Amino acid sequence: MKALGKHLLAEYYGCDRAAIDDVRLVEQSMLEAARRSGATVIGSSFHVFEPYGVSGVVVISESHLAIHTWPEHNFAAVDIFTCGDDVDPMAAHRHLAEVFKTSHATVETVLRGLLNVARKERRC
Amino acid sequence: MKALGKHLLAEYYGCDRAAIDDVRLVEQSMLEAARRSGATVIGSSFHVFEPYGVSGVVVISESHLAIHTWPEHNFAAVDIFTCGDDVDPMAAHRHLAEVFKTSHATVETVLRGLLNVARKERRC
Repeated sequence: MKALGKHLLAEYYGCDRAAIDDVRLVEQSMLEAARRSGATVIGSSFHVFEPYGVSGVVVISESHLAIHTWPEHNFAAVDIFTCGDDVDPMAAHRHLAEVFKTSHATVETVLRGLLNVARKERRC
Repeated sequence: MKALGKHLLAEYYGCDRAAIDDVRLVEQSMLEAARRSGATVIGSSFHVFEPYGVSGVVVISESHLAIHTWPEHNFAAVDIFTCGDDVDPMAAHRHLAEVFKTSHATVETVLRGLLNVARKERRC
């Protein structure tokens, strides 16, 4: 039995406040993280909140990346959901944790779509 | 200690194949699900894959919803990530499971951003 997707739920603590409150930096970092994982970017949507905070998603051919930041708590919640064997979601995580100067992080991996499907029958 | 966000990871099995392969229906359903949860929609990005499958995200003021569908397996993976006490992510889940004629589903709730923050200090 194989999973269709691998989903990393990452909690970034002790982030650089200015970095995770800079929507341009956050978007560029998320796009670069997607590329470093080997994914193909097909769309993105980022938004800034008042008085602070950024939310954004990157849709990739292999699923998506998402981020929500709470600069006032130096905290960001990151999702890296990928499918297929050619993408390395941990590479995306490493890039983001570095850019945001994360002091400590937790990463939980959840397998999505555990189905009794032969590898050859999986398109992703 | 309170969580900044509540994240539902839902696995939908036995979905109606045509429904989860119809990008317009999927997008409309996701937007309606966001509204039914009480969330405020601020952006969305949906894409169709060849030969089949849909991916999409809805950014809401309270975080995001995401979906990836595998019509060939009658399967969809859904994420409903909300913050604040005024949004009901289960209402979004109920709507989507009904629209896609899901025969069975699993829903895992993950608390995101467990911080020692007083309620009055939380903006969402």
